[in-house]
Amino acid sequence: MKFIHTADWHLGKLVHGVYMTEDQRYFLEQFVELVAEEKPDAVVIAGDLYDRSVPPTDAVELLNEMLFKINVDLNTPIVAIGGNHDSAERLSFGSSWYKKSQFYLSGKLNSDFSPFHINGVNFYLVPYAEPGLVRHLMEDDSIHSHDDAMKRIIGKIEETMNPDEPNVLVGHAFVLGGKTSDSERTLSVGGSGCVSASLFEPFSYTALGHLHSPDALKHEKIRYSGSLLKYSFSEAKQEKSISIIEMKENGQFDLRTRSLKPNKDMREIAGYLAELMDPGFHNNQDCGDYLKITLHDEGALIDPINKLRQIYPNVLHLERKLAITDMKKKSTFTSLKEEKKSELELFSKFYEEMTTADFTEEKRSMMADIIEQVRKEESLK
Amino acid sequence: MKFIHTADWHLGKLVHGVYMTEDQRYFLEQFVELVAEEKPDAVVIAGDLYDRSVPPTDAVELLNEMLFKINVDLNTPIVAIGGNHDSAERLSFGSSWYKKSQFYLSGKLNSDFSPFHINGVNFYLVPYAEPGLVRHLMEDDSIHSHDDAMKRIIGKIEETMNPDEPNVLVGHAFVLGGKTSDSERTLSVGGSGCVSASLFEPFSYTALGHLHSPDALKHEKIRYSGSLLKYSFSEAKQEKSISIIEMKENGQFDLRTRSLKPNKDMREIAGYLAELMDPGFHNNQDCGDYLKITLHDEGALIDPINKLRQIYPNVLHLERKLAITDMKKKSTFTSLKEEKKSELELFSKFYEEMTTADFTEEKRSMMADIIEQVRKEESLK
Repeated sequence: MKFIHTADWHLGKLVHGVYMTEDQRYFLEQFVELVAEEKPDAVVIAGDLYDRSVPPTDAVELLNEMLFKINVDLNTPIVAIGGNHDSAERLSFGSSWYKKSQFYLSGKLNSDFSPFHINGVNFYLVPYAEPGLVRHLMEDDSIHSHDDAMKRIIGKIEETMNPDEPNVLVGHAFVLGGKTSDSERTLSVGGSGCVSASLFEPFSYTALGHLHSPDALKHEKIRYSGSLLKYSFSEAKQEKSISIIEMKENGQFDLRTRSLKPNKDMREIAGYLAELMDPGFHNNQDCGDYLKITLHDEGALIDPINKLRQIYPNVLHLERKLAITDMKKKSTFTSLKEEKKSELELFSKFYEEMTTADFTEEKRSMMADIIEQVRKEESLK
Repeated sequence: MKFIHTADWHLGKLVHGVYMTEDQRYFLEQFVELVAEEKPDAVVIAGDLYDRSVPPTDAVELLNEMLFKINVDLNTPIVAIGGNHDSAERLSFGSSWYKKSQFYLSGKLNSDFSPFHINGVNFYLVPYAEPGLVRHLMEDDSIHSHDDAMKRIIGKIEETMNPDEPNVLVGHAFVLGGKTSDSERTLSVGGSGCVSASLFEPFSYTALGHLHSPDALKHEKIRYSGSLLKYSFSEAKQEKSISIIEMKENGQFDLRTRSLKPNKDMREIAGYLAELMDPGFHNNQDCGDYLKITLHDEGALIDPINKLRQIYPNVLHLERKLAITDMKKKSTFTSLKEEKKSELELFSKFYEEMTTADFTEEKRSMMADIIEQVRKEESLK
């Protein structure tokens, strides 16, 4: 039995002010082709289908279209759960109808933990839920943390689970030891939000969502598929992939991954402005990617972002690299502003800090003339 | 062929600060029972299922639950469209799956105007759409008004419609001559938003939503079902009902209506505070109803709303009936405030206006003492 494990689509995501929906469409169209090629017995989506509880309407239309292609056009069962970014209630609308097409969607945790059976594999769906909700649902006041909650849920599942069959848990959680990225929303404010990996021991495979790297956790039976796309520059070096699991009757499985090429990659580049603007440098790369650029130049630069955008239209973030000595100078300058200095003295300091060049006597004389000129104009007003 | 025509559920509606969701649940549970009794071939919901594009999550859950009961538990086809309060895109999610269960939901207008056939009747679904969207969809720059848009849509439908079969249009529009209530959102700012009744001539029956009174339009073939519940005090006297249509093969039909009792009625009562508080008056009525109370008392009343709420817990709106002479006095008082008058003079005017009693010499003397006392205390601070 073969299934594809994916998660964290975050449809409708906004990254540095740019809506990712068209990039997500481009990527998902390839994903649908991959499903058509692989002909899996199921596609598992482990939460965070949307980036927020009320996603933009084009993200709603995109999800609807892609799931319909996979489930109905390609006649592929889907197993999906809500994540911490999804609205449990909004995502759940219609679930009861979808089941008829073997689209098993559990947006909101409820007390029915019976699995869905697909070609000999039992899928246990555990959508993201706050510990308080689990405490209420299970009528168990001892549940306070995500770990308590998952322990209780898995305990409940084990009551009826047949351990001799291949059992897959689909969950959305922060499993202890997992590596985080910048685009995941913290699960608990105060408290760790963590769940112990050992809890998932009863399952043949645990298909997780939440952490965005496919390498977030090193565990032979518990896996994060990783997010659909890179959603922060902290993920720039991650190799995103789709996990394909071939589950055997004894619960053992083979795993392989496939990668798809996004419309635009998300990368970081660094160097001097002149270097980055040099065709010798940028002719060899995909300048349309989403970029974070760090400039090494120390002096003043006139409108570097617009210069860079002529070559790299999708710069999302620009940083200047300031050496420690510059930082010191900066603080000197700040303190200077608070003293009474002549305009010329202030400008002289400013010039030297911003350009790292000498404020020569010729320049000083020119600047003095300008200041004098401005003073005169002011006094005539 | 029998179908039930309803519309304007407005799930998640807030009336004078009170969420109607529990009242809507109470009412819809009875509606489901009515469907179970009547065993219609279809239930038609002519738009505004929700009150707003992003309804509260309990309204989402309520709609999901009720539609599932009707469609799946009772095995009754549903024909539903989006109204001007619904989000076309959000409502549409999942429509493609629902069709398999004969739940025909058209949240967003598209260029496919082929009907859904249920037991010999053709249902043409025309969800609410702005004229601009229809102009774009039809690639017809001459479309500017709702009337233009509907004319174009119906023209398109007629190209393939068999006029010898019973054809039903399900629409959400303001048909010319319809009577409005306060809880309908105006369709066009500037311009009338109106659609001529004559456009619907080709149809055996036009099942409309938008206007909240079942009597909004007097027309033998075009009907507003009216809203689920009363959603404003301007609807207090409306008799809400569910329309039941028995359609014959020749397109003629019989119509009857059934009424359901809401959890709380919405009514207006008026009288003197003492009258309304008299058990002789209130023992004979359902004091838990949503009420707008108009008090006839002219003088000052101490905290009348809280007194009334002890008897009528769901007062939503309280008004004082001011005779024209009072209004005049009121404006006199307002203008007085702007002049320089002594505190005693001001109070004397105020007392007479609020109580319609004389400010006797005894009272004047008491008030003067109080003012004197306050002045002393102030000067000691």
